[in-house]
Amino acid sequence: MATAAGASAGLPPVAPSLIGRGHQEDPLLASLAPSPDAPNPALAAQAALLARPVTEERRMADAIRALAIDAVEQAKSGHPGMPMGMADAATTLFTKFLKFDAADPRWPDRDRFVLSAGHGSMLLYALLNLTGQEGMGIDDIKRFRQLHSPAAGHPEYGEHPGIETTTGPLGQGLANAVGMALAERLLAARFGKSLVDHRTWVIAGDGCLQEGISHEAASLAGHLQLSKLTVLYDDNSITIDGDTALSFTDDTLKRFAAYGWAVRRVDGHDPADLAAAMLWASRSRRPTLLACKTIIGFSAPTKAGTAGSHGSPLGPTEAAAAKSALGWNHPPFEVPDGLRAQWEAAGRRSAGTRRSWLKRLTRHPQREEFERAIAGRLPNAWHEALATLRIQTAEQKPKLATRVASQKALEALVPAVPEMVGGSADLTGSNNTNVKGIPAVTPGNFAGRYIHYGVREHGMAAAMNGMALHGGIIPYSGTFLVFADYMRPAIRLAALMRQRVIHVLTHDSIGLGEDGPTHQPVETLAGLRAIPNLCVFRPGDAMETAECWELAVKRADGPTVLALSRQNLAAFRTDTGENRCARGGYVVEEAPGPRQATLIASGSEVGLALAARTALEAEGIATAVVSLPCWELFAAQDASYREQVLGSALRVGIEAATGFGWERWLGPDGVFVGMTGFGASAPAEALFKHFGITAEAVVAAVKKRLG
Amino acid sequence: MATAAGASAGLPPVAPSLIGRGHQEDPLLASLAPSPDAPNPALAAQAALLARPVTEERRMADAIRALAIDAVEQAKSGHPGMPMGMADAATTLFTKFLKFDAADPRWPDRDRFVLSAGHGSMLLYALLNLTGQEGMGIDDIKRFRQLHSPAAGHPEYGEHPGIETTTGPLGQGLANAVGMALAERLLAARFGKSLVDHRTWVIAGDGCLQEGISHEAASLAGHLQLSKLTVLYDDNSITIDGDTALSFTDDTLKRFAAYGWAVRRVDGHDPADLAAAMLWASRSRRPTLLACKTIIGFSAPTKAGTAGSHGSPLGPTEAAAAKSALGWNHPPFEVPDGLRAQWEAAGRRSAGTRRSWLKRLTRHPQREEFERAIAGRLPNAWHEALATLRIQTAEQKPKLATRVASQKALEALVPAVPEMVGGSADLTGSNNTNVKGIPAVTPGNFAGRYIHYGVREHGMAAAMNGMALHGGIIPYSGTFLVFADYMRPAIRLAALMRQRVIHVLTHDSIGLGEDGPTHQPVETLAGLRAIPNLCVFRPGDAMETAECWELAVKRADGPTVLALSRQNLAAFRTDTGENRCARGGYVVEEAPGPRQATLIASGSEVGLALAARTALEAEGIATAVVSLPCWELFAAQDASYREQVLGSALRVGIEAATGFGWERWLGPDGVFVGMTGFGASAPAEALFKHFGITAEAVVAAVKKRLG
Repeated sequence: MATAAGASAGLPPVAPSLIGRGHQEDPLLASLAPSPDAPNPALAAQAALLARPVTEERRMADAIRALAIDAVEQAKSGHPGMPMGMADAATTLFTKFLKFDAADPRWPDRDRFVLSAGHGSMLLYALLNLTGQEGMGIDDIKRFRQLHSPAAGHPEYGEHPGIETTTGPLGQGLANAVGMALAERLLAARFGKSLVDHRTWVIAGDGCLQEGISHEAASLAGHLQLSKLTVLYDDNSITIDGDTALSFTDDTLKRFAAYGWAVRRVDGHDPADLAAAMLWASRSRRPTLLACKTIIGFSAPTKAGTAGSHGSPLGPTEAAAAKSALGWNHPPFEVPDGLRAQWEAAGRRSAGTRRSWLKRLTRHPQREEFERAIAGRLPNAWHEALATLRIQTAEQKPKLATRVASQKALEALVPAVPEMVGGSADLTGSNNTNVKGIPAVTPGNFAGRYIHYGVREHGMAAAMNGMALHGGIIPYSGTFLVFADYMRPAIRLAALMRQRVIHVLTHDSIGLGEDGPTHQPVETLAGLRAIPNLCVFRPGDAMETAECWELAVKRADGPTVLALSRQNLAAFRTDTGENRCARGGYVVEEAPGPRQATLIASGSEVGLALAARTALEAEGIATAVVSLPCWELFAAQDASYREQVLGSALRVGIEAATGFGWERWLGPDGVFVGMTGFGASAPAEALFKHFGITAEAVVAAVKKRLG
Repeated sequence: MATAAGASAGLPPVAPSLIGRGHQEDPLLASLAPSPDAPNPALAAQAALLARPVTEERRMADAIRALAIDAVEQAKSGHPGMPMGMADAATTLFTKFLKFDAADPRWPDRDRFVLSAGHGSMLLYALLNLTGQEGMGIDDIKRFRQLHSPAAGHPEYGEHPGIETTTGPLGQGLANAVGMALAERLLAARFGKSLVDHRTWVIAGDGCLQEGISHEAASLAGHLQLSKLTVLYDDNSITIDGDTALSFTDDTLKRFAAYGWAVRRVDGHDPADLAAAMLWASRSRRPTLLACKTIIGFSAPTKAGTAGSHGSPLGPTEAAAAKSALGWNHPPFEVPDGLRAQWEAAGRRSAGTRRSWLKRLTRHPQREEFERAIAGRLPNAWHEALATLRIQTAEQKPKLATRVASQKALEALVPAVPEMVGGSADLTGSNNTNVKGIPAVTPGNFAGRYIHYGVREHGMAAAMNGMALHGGIIPYSGTFLVFADYMRPAIRLAALMRQRVIHVLTHDSIGLGEDGPTHQPVETLAGLRAIPNLCVFRPGDAMETAECWELAVKRADGPTVLALSRQNLAAFRTDTGENRCARGGYVVEEAPGPRQATLIASGSEVGLALAARTALEAEGIATAVVSLPCWELFAAQDASYREQVLGSALRVGIEAATGFGWERWLGPDGVFVGMTGFGASAPAEALFKHFGITAEAVVAAVKKRLG
């Protein structure tokens, strides 16, 4: 943040480096190498800092720097600049503030640490290694960025228990952290401070704060007064293209103050200033932003303070000189035993706190419930609640929009599953995501279980990832299906991390009518179905909706989308035994004799297929109808089941969306009745007719094909 | 913005309405209807305003209100609240400030007006109708939200020449406007102030400002000092879920000031205050935000100031009472002749200015060039520049990453096509989007043609849409392919509006290597291919890259994605005649005899397919290789061409991405060699081997299938 460069305490201003000090990732880009004539004013500040006596804190930070330098050199790729710049701040955090126990990185009441600037992954790996955590040995660090190493290019959730979330796509970690801090408050309201009382710390860079998601997340955190959230902003004035002044002149502190955050400037290389700021943050009644003025690539003799240290190895000469400037004269990957012992002591710093917590847990009246929720096991009552709903649905055969059927499922589930926390991106009434009697979370009051996320789809989805990652919460959202696009980067990460988050996406086709093509998903289903590990359900009536909700809640290892209709749909299912949606697709109505045609539909088009079947049967054409609510689950069935369902007769796919991907089920001889492009603004019935998605059109297509 | 409610000049504070005054769109949601007991403090402020003498401005604004009320009633759906609330501000803008001529809504030097809060579309349609613009007659308004009416649910670009952009997905219009304001500055720098000197005005609501894209767009506009951009913020304290205080407590003025904007509060119902503020904005040296405090649904006796007026018809009783409160006693859809005459005079207000401009254009030395650029016709030199490159490429057969080949294409194109304006979301060196000798745009200096967009992918893509819509600019961007997800809502709108924007998306597969699964697109190609009207190219060598660039630049009626490799790829094309990529797919190498297998690949996998072919031929298996750089164009060929290319032998698809959608080309008997899930962090060669995407794997698959 160039406008703030001069205002940092204790450091001379870090002036803009010159344009052209570009990204060095690639040898092909030699033309972008820094000019040898370009002045680099960060170097004077660095020299002053290096001239100071070496303290214990500096030496601990240097261990991070040395490991980052060595690992990136060895991998011949990676991002040394951030770990080198933020090593001092991270050292203060991990040795004095962060509540964690290296012996149990999954201790539920640990502070969460999120490296939102995920490219600086070596900072995190160095900390995990130095604090003595299992599973991140020096051999793992030596294999930084190699196949099967837990030290992946960016922190990957699941590779090590100390990695709280997958980061790299900028801004996501910050928004995850907002969700984690919110989850902490929700669980503290439920289980009390004796079990749940921890903070969330984030390191975020300029890139994170330039991303739009940072606005949504920070605005929401400020609104909700998530006072136990602290962002250490690596205010190093450098992004990949060069000095931040190339593209970024925000007054970030003022911006966050406008969100209701408490903000403070910090000298990012001064342990005393860092500690004072973190203490101040710990006592804040608002979320806190600490803008840590740092020199990226600190200690590198020519590349410090430039984009040249951001995203590529320093090179052997510069690497050696950097270590020499630090007075670090150990062989690569070696940390002296004494220094390791200091770090390992830091890793045990909260061991007593954890033991006390375990004692409190042992005698806590809600112990079992707490452990159940944290482990992600559903309560006993959950299944019965849905079973009752399914019996009622079978009796009543209600003609409901599936979004309303979804509300009924929620009315059964939410009271029975206290870890379900709902919300909507300002479409509560349209998404039918709220349940009577469930209060909303309000600023500073977390006794509720419904979040008014505001018009912040992306922040919502990423905060939900953070809530799921935190544990103890099953978050579900609401918005229109077409706005899945706004959430897509976060949905992708939920799929990559296999987190149980559930998105209730209503208004799932041209059936929404008058709002027109901007609001009508046509390619959205295909776009979501393409994401690995994501289950996309499109139920066709109230019974299927209840079944899909059951599968979504039960699905502990991945995210779910429920695509739901705005318009009413007649019931076609009255059986309550097997959850038929669990196989992804099934025969709703078999043909009376050998099939001449199989109509395969999802959601609102199943009813249309059944109407077409009636007409075809009247003309003597033996027709089966298949409901295909979930491609992912259907694809997971064995081939014989799939063939039996789809049959060998003429296959007709029917979906009020484009046919992208449908060839998988229809084969080369199939027919698709659906959209071929974007929708239009008109009442729904007019649109179905206009775009030829009607029972008549299906009948005509079958008859034409059968000759 | 609840915190600001008390600070608005001249109006009593609009206190929060109660939670539960939810969205009324649907009769099913009766439970969310406002409680009859809920106090509504906006009504007192409204009463005071209605008690004032009716001025000419008020009466003109009332015409907007009446048309909005009537159209929404007639359609039985729509959003009356915003037009009723912002009618006064719009009247001041259209009668005193906006430079436009109703006789020529496409006059290039008109001010741009963007209704970012697109749900309030009736505001725009009323203005188009009242100012006497052709193509928005009262019969069109009567058919608001009906099939084929230009008065669609949300403003749709192309439905009327006075609609500058398609809006509805919140925040997009604001970001489009940033692009329009930037385009104006770029063209002014190129053609001078005598031809290009206009402002961009936006109406945006709370929803627009909650969206993350508003951060990216406003931060960029502040950075670049786009002083001719003014946002009228409809600060009505209401979103769909109810009072903004439910989810939103930003100090928006402070936030925009932090971006470098000039900000001011305005009484949104006081024509004098509005005019003073717009005058002030017109003279600002920074972009301006005017926070217009308004009462949503102004004049509605019970629903004003509540979410109840936001998204559904007032209902006949409330509608009649609202008109009565205004003293508007004309039949539905009728506007008295005198009032119409006043409005039509406003529509002619700048006719003289336009005539003067036309005279200046006639004698302007750059007239032809200006007209050519505005019309979107390419300069004569463009094709030759690429033809020369293709000849060189054929001679040199360079082994290049396609991102580097793309840079070479840009080095040929950008000097020849002065309307091409490039940029990158902070990955200039990686995306290879900059061209030597082309200066960057810097704050307040628009002589450059390269934009450092910062880490703002979404804002970049939406600003590019605005630049294309403005006319005279062909924008191209750069980021990593996987981050297309961050831009997806804007890419969708480019496709819907058929705008020529070009996205250079590099690092297009696991071939990017160590950065790992967060950065490796696997489903991204499928997700993009699913978007109607979007051309996705994935060229396989330098020649194909040049051909795809030719097609992208020539494509005047839609957006293009170029998916490009990080890693070097051997040349396989040396012919320079026909642009073979123009057919989307073609045979690179035919089998020597009747085909036994056809290997179908794109991008980096074409080379792999050729290697596999060599091995297969050595074993006597007659194999053809097909390059499939663009599905959209291939699908547009006639069936006989497609069959000829794909052949009837075993089809093997090869792409370092998931196979979603590939069944279209492979049929039920085909084989796909590619990814089945997310990638991993390791050097590229290790990954291709790990995931089994190798020539050996292809050979094995073919041999296994052929027995």
